[in-house]
Amino acid sequence: MLPKLWIPQPCASQPSLANFSLQREVSLLGTLKWRIVFAMPRGASGLSMAAGLVLIGIGPGGIGGMTSDAISAAKDADYRRYEAYTALWSQEDLESLEGEIGEIRKVMRPEVEAPVELLALAKTHSVALLVVGDPLQATTHVDLQLQALEAGVQCTVIHGVAITGLVTGAVGLSNYRFGRQTTLTYPYGGWIATSPLEVIAVNRIQGLHTLALLDLDPTGEGVGGQKPMQPKDAADAMERMALKLSETLGELPKDSNFDLMKIEACNKITKDFAELMVVLCSDMGTPEQSITYLSIEELANAENGRLHCIIIPSEPSDVELSALSRWSKK
Amino acid sequence: MLPKLWIPQPCASQPSLANFSLQREVSLLGTLKWRIVFAMPRGASGLSMAAGLVLIGIGPGGIGGMTSDAISAAKDADYRRYEAYTALWSQEDLESLEGEIGEIRKVMRPEVEAPVELLALAKTHSVALLVVGDPLQATTHVDLQLQALEAGVQCTVIHGVAITGLVTGAVGLSNYRFGRQTTLTYPYGGWIATSPLEVIAVNRIQGLHTLALLDLDPTGEGVGGQKPMQPKDAADAMERMALKLSETLGELPKDSNFDLMKIEACNKITKDFAELMVVLCSDMGTPEQSITYLSIEELANAENGRLHCIIIPSEPSDVELSALSRWSKK
Repeated sequence: MLPKLWIPQPCASQPSLANFSLQREVSLLGTLKWRIVFAMPRGASGLSMAAGLVLIGIGPGGIGGMTSDAISAAKDADYRRYEAYTALWSQEDLESLEGEIGEIRKVMRPEVEAPVELLALAKTHSVALLVVGDPLQATTHVDLQLQALEAGVQCTVIHGVAITGLVTGAVGLSNYRFGRQTTLTYPYGGWIATSPLEVIAVNRIQGLHTLALLDLDPTGEGVGGQKPMQPKDAADAMERMALKLSETLGELPKDSNFDLMKIEACNKITKDFAELMVVLCSDMGTPEQSITYLSIEELANAENGRLHCIIIPSEPSDVELSALSRWSKK
Repeated sequence: MLPKLWIPQPCASQPSLANFSLQREVSLLGTLKWRIVFAMPRGASGLSMAAGLVLIGIGPGGIGGMTSDAISAAKDADYRRYEAYTALWSQEDLESLEGEIGEIRKVMRPEVEAPVELLALAKTHSVALLVVGDPLQATTHVDLQLQALEAGVQCTVIHGVAITGLVTGAVGLSNYRFGRQTTLTYPYGGWIATSPLEVIAVNRIQGLHTLALLDLDPTGEGVGGQKPMQPKDAADAMERMALKLSETLGELPKDSNFDLMKIEACNKITKDFAELMVVLCSDMGTPEQSITYLSIEELANAENGRLHCIIIPSEPSDVELSALSRWSKK
């Protein structure tokens, strides 16, 4: 039987790996009778795994939030790479992880999007790519999966706790009332896209909440100097979007019922912008987690943290309002 | 330092528990130097935890997909309850879990929604409520959290891998292109709600994909006899919705731009219904995981499994199409 959450993906033109299979071994160690589970290729000796790429979700931060399959697989891999441009763990947590599972090397966007080295290495060795949260939440990792498939490199996936999967419930808003999610980005060279605010507006007019992730790449190139956006950056970005959107409303297309609804939505959000209430979610899923329900004006002065995301609620239901009131500033 | 993902929630009127805190202890056991992590209340002896309710997400199925914090906390609790009406593990996985962490008793909807017993027990003992996936994805558990707060019972949360967080990426569709999610339910007493198909229609006209979870409660009462909907049940339900919606289109309100867009969307989906393509996702996040991209007609004849959900994609992008083509019937 395969270890749970360890899902081999279909693989082209590599018959020797097509029957790749893992055995689960269970042992009893020590007086606490703590059982450990580890993965090994059938017939192999020791703990090394078959060659291939393993995308491992390591959760939002800290070993305690990794699944036991993720810990085993990361430990057993010949090489460990940590994808350090879509999201980050704290340096302290990373160092504990390294102490636990072995040496980890950071990789940035160019090495993941043009994965020549990664895939060459994975042809002959087991290579773990550690990804914060779940390993398939960003399109870039789905693309990596497809490139591995094309190169005939076995690619397996171990899912992890994703921020997008925990934040809605942690805040206490109904999962069924979330619309499309968006990401607020840094203004690149002074230019700002209004599309994130348009997504929020279109969700709100349909009575839907919005989860907005925050950029952590001031250059937009994913090559280093990652600096997660702070509450003030987010408030500034949204304010600039609202201003620009109010000036360009007349340029939006008016061709369909959707277009008309969108214009109405954008008009409304730019008018009501100063009254907008948001939920600031900081370092979610870590011991430093904090949630605050506050106005867009207060957001600009909110405390900094490591990683944030923001929820922009639509009109909350009664239960949702009780849930939100836990996070109001006292 | 608190163990990761172990987030104490604010708690009213119980000062003796307000400073509840956990220490992380790390030990080296055995020749493999496997480190285990366990949680204990500061100052307490042995492994028992402070009184209170711990909502523990146990992931989609199998111990390997539980976080190490979840395993420790479930093991250390005085009592373990398993919420068995919003989602299910296989009997085999449940039995392995019980062998690992100790006796587990099932609880159904009445015991969770009117949690008199649960909260009374949690006043004097540590009680773990094991929830499949993440423990706050269903509104019912957020409500339980609020009731605990009101009753002055300490309530902590350990997040888990949620099906909603992994399925979008596992299928290979962009997270940013998902609209509101929905649930297909059994027809109760022959009556069927058309709202799930309306959600799908409104998403599609905006170019958004829809994740549809499937009901597992034929009576709708959550008291037992849970029977997860199978592909044929889902196809039948959707077909009945399409028929009913096509007959009642004229009754939909026409008061706003949103209403007009919704009528257009519903009209379109009922006309194109026979050509609808869907992604059937079975037993996601378990070793039995299977994904199939097929027509609504084929869905009615698809293989059964344990738990399913369905994705109804909107027009896919190029990368999405490559990703989806992995799941086409050969």
